[in-house]
Amino acid sequence: MAEALKDTPVRLRAHAKTHKSPIITQKQMALGAVGACCQKVSEAEILVRGGVPNVLVSNEVIGEHKLARLAALARGAEWIGLCIDSDLGISQAAQAASDARVVLNSLVEIDVGADRCGAAPGKPALELARMIAECPDLHFAGLQAYQGSAQHIRDHGERKTAIDEAIAMTRMTVELLKQNGLECAIVGGAGTGTFEMEAGSGVYSELQAGSYIFMDADYARNKAADGSPFMTFEHALFVLTSVMSRPSDKKSIVDAGHKAASIDSGMPEPFGLGGLSYSRPSDEHGVLSIEGSNQPPGLGEKILLVPGHCDPTVNLHDWYICVRGMNSGDAIVEDFWPVSARGAYF
Amino acid sequence: MAEALKDTPVRLRAHAKTHKSPIITQKQMALGAVGACCQKVSEAEILVRGGVPNVLVSNEVIGEHKLARLAALARGAEWIGLCIDSDLGISQAAQAASDARVVLNSLVEIDVGADRCGAAPGKPALELARMIAECPDLHFAGLQAYQGSAQHIRDHGERKTAIDEAIAMTRMTVELLKQNGLECAIVGGAGTGTFEMEAGSGVYSELQAGSYIFMDADYARNKAADGSPFMTFEHALFVLTSVMSRPSDKKSIVDAGHKAASIDSGMPEPFGLGGLSYSRPSDEHGVLSIEGSNQPPGLGEKILLVPGHCDPTVNLHDWYICVRGMNSGDAIVEDFWPVSARGAYF
Repeated sequence: MAEALKDTPVRLRAHAKTHKSPIITQKQMALGAVGACCQKVSEAEILVRGGVPNVLVSNEVIGEHKLARLAALARGAEWIGLCIDSDLGISQAAQAASDARVVLNSLVEIDVGADRCGAAPGKPALELARMIAECPDLHFAGLQAYQGSAQHIRDHGERKTAIDEAIAMTRMTVELLKQNGLECAIVGGAGTGTFEMEAGSGVYSELQAGSYIFMDADYARNKAADGSPFMTFEHALFVLTSVMSRPSDKKSIVDAGHKAASIDSGMPEPFGLGGLSYSRPSDEHGVLSIEGSNQPPGLGEKILLVPGHCDPTVNLHDWYICVRGMNSGDAIVEDFWPVSARGAYF
Repeated sequence: MAEALKDTPVRLRAHAKTHKSPIITQKQMALGAVGACCQKVSEAEILVRGGVPNVLVSNEVIGEHKLARLAALARGAEWIGLCIDSDLGISQAAQAASDARVVLNSLVEIDVGADRCGAAPGKPALELARMIAECPDLHFAGLQAYQGSAQHIRDHGERKTAIDEAIAMTRMTVELLKQNGLECAIVGGAGTGTFEMEAGSGVYSELQAGSYIFMDADYARNKAADGSPFMTFEHALFVLTSVMSRPSDKKSIVDAGHKAASIDSGMPEPFGLGGLSYSRPSDEHGVLSIEGSNQPPGLGEKILLVPGHCDPTVNLHDWYICVRGMNSGDAIVEDFWPVSARGAYF
């Protein structure tokens, strides 16, 4: 990702909700990322305490306790930001910043097609931006314009259409703000599925891609422009499982189920084992079935699964077991990293 | 559950994979449960260390390291058991027990319709039972006969048909073993969705129900014999979420997504809020939509969600916040219990 953005004016603010690890964020920053984004105040706390100086909560924060903790964080960090899409969001953030004697960097979130959070592009966003700019305890830092629902559209052309619409709404809003004297230092959004489109838009200035660091099975089901599988990035996250039952020659039962790998974006995929598929997970079981004429793995055999969705899978585990040279003959366990923000819940 | 089994010869071995808490197991035992079952050696370790003397791993255990740890556990506990469905399972368990100078209680698992682990009922089960009985390091303790896929069949009659078939296969196997001099001290199985059927079968002697302790939204979608919702047990597990965005009068966005509640058995349900449904979860978001003419909850409002599936939801969280008098006007937080076996992975 650093390589892809090297000769562009676009910055990377790598999403830490994927890995929940300040160690990985620091490695991303060493390669050029300006900082991290995350979805929760509790994640931001763990990032800052883990040595990350620049964190955006790329999400709305409502509630005086949460905002007080975010504001407290702004005292020790270089740069702390959040997203806002309501009057109440502004007044609560301003109160927390005032109480803590800090200034909170505030992005107005606009809904560019994801149909989730965010004010409408154009005038509603302008109104919120004006209110923020007039508030001494907040600093208007730009727009949050993430089209999340486009990330997993399989067809490249359809994905591009969705992002073109998002770019158009974002451009229109940026220009309207500019006409009204409000410069967007940050125009943030994009994910692993569409980052090249936002990067080339001339509108977005910060990309919030996260999954590229691990590359899950669902992103690998996307298609590139030429129709080939989207594999700009390699799989780097695996769940190790073993066969504990082999009731027939057609299937093996492994000990990885819902508590080992999330299935909200489809099933995990056995790594490097053609003709084998994973299905019918229960809490602590999964079924490996064969489609071809091969035998499924035998009792006690160990298999790597590529998770369907990396973010919620990481959130199930306490540790990364870091392996070097995995595809070589002499792979070694080189380190253990905690999933520091696992279970961060507010 | 204790009440339902009080005047029967059937024992409760409450499943701890649901709650992962030795504190809750001890409360279940104080009400009459004989012990716990769980799915992993690592869960068994945490139960025993948390004061539970009697634990069955209601699952196959393959691998010398895992089995060595299970055997070590048998030294300090009153009773430790596991399930076996293969020759390799027997030889590995026997070796581990011999090395640790203990005897491991061994149940033969039979497949009674779940199509997951287990030997075939009848002769294949008899062969395994004989091998176990002849092994000085193992004690043949009976049969594991869990029909997991029947638990969530909505219609009571269809559910009963599936369990009647499971009971018939189990009865036939128990009798075949008996004819061959092998008594089943334990005939284990059943879950919250079917426990009354196994309890009344005259064949099963231990029920392994777990979810009853919390009663999730998916079990509440089952139907009782009269067609009414299956609500023998009350909901007792909730995820507290708050509204962080309210982009229209038709929906509110809450801060509970895949990392707060699992969706493998359907969506969580807003508790006590008719006409409101939860949908479209992402990592840290969910959408509350209204079907009727009510307004969805406002910014900052707090909502309780009943998880779709309690077991993997509990596995996302580190603590229970124990509330007394939740439905009264003066609910209080009375205790915090750790989800001690959260993330237990082997």
